[in-house]
Amino acid sequence: MTFLARAKDRHLLAACRAACVLVPPGVEDAPLPVIEVADPYLGVAIIHTYLLARPFVATGVHKTATIGADCHIPSQVSIGPNVVLGDRVRLGTRTRLDAGVVLGDDVVLGDDCWLKANVTIAHATMLGHRVIVDSGTVIGSDGYGYTPDQTGHFHKRPQVGIVRIEDDVEIGACCCIDRATFGETVIGAGTKIDNLVQIAHNVVVGANSLLIAQVAIAGSTTLGRNVIMAGAAKSTGHIHIGDRAQIAAGSAVHHNIAAGAVVAGMPAFEAKRWLKTSAVYQRLPEMYSELKTLRAEVAALKARHTEGGHND
Amino acid sequence: MTFLARAKDRHLLAACRAACVLVPPGVEDAPLPVIEVADPYLGVAIIHTYLLARPFVATGVHKTATIGADCHIPSQVSIGPNVVLGDRVRLGTRTRLDAGVVLGDDVVLGDDCWLKANVTIAHATMLGHRVIVDSGTVIGSDGYGYTPDQTGHFHKRPQVGIVRIEDDVEIGACCCIDRATFGETVIGAGTKIDNLVQIAHNVVVGANSLLIAQVAIAGSTTLGRNVIMAGAAKSTGHIHIGDRAQIAAGSAVHHNIAAGAVVAGMPAFEAKRWLKTSAVYQRLPEMYSELKTLRAEVAALKARHTEGGHND
Amino acid sequence: MTFLARAKDRHLLAACRAACVLVPPGVEDAPLPVIEVADPYLGVAIIHTYLLARPFVATGVHKTATIGADCHIPSQVSIGPNVVLGDRVRLGTRTRLDAGVVLGDDVVLGDDCWLKANVTIAHATMLGHRVIVDSGTVIGSDGYGYTPDQTGHFHKRPQVGIVRIEDDVEIGACCCIDRATFGETVIGAGTKIDNLVQIAHNVVVGANSLLIAQVAIAGSTTLGRNVIMAGAAKSTGHIHIGDRAQIAAGSAVHHNIAAGAVVAGMPAFEAKRWLKTSAVYQRLPEMYSELKTLRAEVAALKARHTEGGHND
Repeated sequence: MTFLARAKDRHLLAACRAACVLVPPGVEDAPLPVIEVADPYLGVAIIHTYLLARPFVATGVHKTATIGADCHIPSQVSIGPNVVLGDRVRLGTRTRLDAGVVLGDDVVLGDDCWLKANVTIAHATMLGHRVIVDSGTVIGSDGYGYTPDQTGHFHKRPQVGIVRIEDDVEIGACCCIDRATFGETVIGAGTKIDNLVQIAHNVVVGANSLLIAQVAIAGSTTLGRNVIMAGAAKSTGHIHIGDRAQIAAGSAVHHNIAAGAVVAGMPAFEAKRWLKTSAVYQRLPEMYSELKTLRAEVAALKARHTEGGHND
Repeated sequence: MTFLARAKDRHLLAACRAACVLVPPGVEDAPLPVIEVADPYLGVAIIHTYLLARPFVATGVHKTATIGADCHIPSQVSIGPNVVLGDRVRLGTRTRLDAGVVLGDDVVLGDDCWLKANVTIAHATMLGHRVIVDSGTVIGSDGYGYTPDQTGHFHKRPQVGIVRIEDDVEIGACCCIDRATFGETVIGAGTKIDNLVQIAHNVVVGANSLLIAQVAIAGSTTLGRNVIMAGAAKSTGHIHIGDRAQIAAGSAVHHNIAAGAVVAGMPAFEAKRWLKTSAVYQRLPEMYSELKTLRAEVAALKARHTEGGHND
Repeated sequence: MTFLARAKDRHLLAACRAACVLVPPGVEDAPLPVIEVADPYLGVAIIHTYLLARPFVATGVHKTATIGADCHIPSQVSIGPNVVLGDRVRLGTRTRLDAGVVLGDDVVLGDDCWLKANVTIAHATMLGHRVIVDSGTVIGSDGYGYTPDQTGHFHKRPQVGIVRIEDDVEIGACCCIDRATFGETVIGAGTKIDNLVQIAHNVVVGANSLLIAQVAIAGSTTLGRNVIMAGAAKSTGHIHIGDRAQIAAGSAVHHNIAAGAVVAGMPAFEAKRWLKTSAVYQRLPEMYSELKTLRAEVAALKARHTEGGHND
């Protein structure tokens, strides 16, 4: 089974050897079996997920795992080799912890979480249901907070808050999500995070947002729902990025962003304007020369006028 | 106990329910107990650290740890599950190594170091006293050095130097600090490094510097004391960034930076100028149109002059 | 033994205390023993590698390692403490796996691979011969693929492809290389990757390319041979970067790049032009003022002409 994303590509069906094709509205007289759906891309994601789903297999707790005191571990879990749980850890049912995962004291996981090999979750972090975390990611690392004294030495501010990850969040590989100074750093339900993303202390990301690879969000910034930060986009701290805002790849947000705004650039401004601006940018050397020429020409014109004036 | 950062916010004290507030000079007639200090931010960091400090508890060496030959391990240590020490490792007193930490051969740690879960320290790396390293960080990875031959194949240059981390350094999660080609890569005393920071081979960072998340410093660059590189700032290799210089977030330094300079942009220049420049940048499309209009107007004026000349 | 990179620095040889110096052509009457080679930099890399090479020592499988079912493990291997192999893993001869390495099910490694401590290789990943992977790196993490439904919730697209790493590739610390949605993500033979690099699903990197620290390449982009992406350079998805193209540090590529092109900027364009453009960029505030002045002067000239016209 495959899919055709756009009706205008329907001529491609002639060469297709799939048993069945999901097609968008507007494909008629197809040369092979088709199923019309509103959004073939979505349809194939749902169908592939259904076809590829494997039932959870509970392998229990591997003999090399180290389990702390007073942990709550349901019977239906798969805890791999060398996994380490601190004290008072609470796991949900059907938890899968791959080899080398480390959970600190007082970590709480909802049902159906899957933490891949070598993930580190520091103490008191809370994960909701169906959270997936890919390898190498660190959740609950200390926030970055220091205060200088008069001699230029920095004093650490204790980071006593936690990280709370809501339901259906997926987090890629080698990400860092720092615990709050006080209170919580929060990743909202359904948000999907790519690899190598940095979330600083006290950041709150709303539901169903997308944070693509190498995004970084500085401390105490809040994001609304369905925000998209494209690859390597950055946000300064202590601002708000409104619902459905989109930050272009490689851009840097320095001020509050209104709901629904689409911005680009460093610092970021309206993306449509940025497209024009970055096109003009390439012509700066010519603009500079022309300005110089015009300056000379205007000076010459003024001089002739002045001469003209004298002649009057 | 809480704190008031600025005297001008003293009206907020009326609604405060803390038992005591650290306040800056200039707060009179406070409605609750206050302690006046020169810098409430610093004061609260020191007091919180004092109140939250837990005495070191030596749990010894966990039974799942693997210890190489000829290691020096004091009696007062806490070595967690699955920690691996190579040969000839020397630990200071009150060392805390959390689960999954790996130290290569000949690593030396000072007193009171704390390496969090899944930190990797490669062979011959030296850490001073009171160094904290957060999870996922790698210290002593190979420097990136290759030389092409005539056929376009790259030959590795052996990286035989080390990394030396001085006293009171704190390093965040998922950072990479490469060993030197020859000699040392150095992180100076009291420097604080955030998450996902890249330090290339032979870099020397001076004392009490701040490197915020996603900073990258290319090979052989040296930083003075009390330098600040804000989030995602980059430096090219083989340059010097002077004492107390500040590099703005997202900026890229291509040349030597003088002591005390504050720079921004890519490539970076004086930050005050950059602020003006980036404001004008947004108006480039209008500047381009206006230049076109002026060009036409000046051409028309010149033509009239020429006509005028003919008319003379 | 040391080397002199450039003949014009030959005066430095007088103070040199090495036993022997590799020198380029054009160094005559040297005050100490020299060996003339076409490229001293390359020569010293080859000689140092030869002198520093240590024969592979097979220590076997450490007693704390966990080996899955039906694995193929040659007699000549060194598998360190807490290494975990899934089922059906096939290792080449002289494989070195340092402490804490995790290989998922069906991983295949060629001969002479060296994976350093805490590397994670997910299921079905294939590595060629002589591949080196530094600590903290994750290969085979899930690609980032989600599709929204009408309610704004994201559905995961299963990532059923693999990662294939060809011979003689070296990968630094804390990198992420995602598995393909379908098919393969490929790193071509002889390519060298620095630290904290992000390679998305279905990317194909050609042979002998260099990807410096913090590079990121979005999904389905293909690179030719001998491409150089300098530090923190980014590429958007679904484009092609031609053979021998060079992308400057901190630049972002938004369109196909021709073979041999050298580009810079965000979005990137010809590097020579970018150098001029970024120099003019710093003068934008003056250009803006001058444009304003010229506008007033041209308006005044026009007014005088018009007056002049009335006076006629």
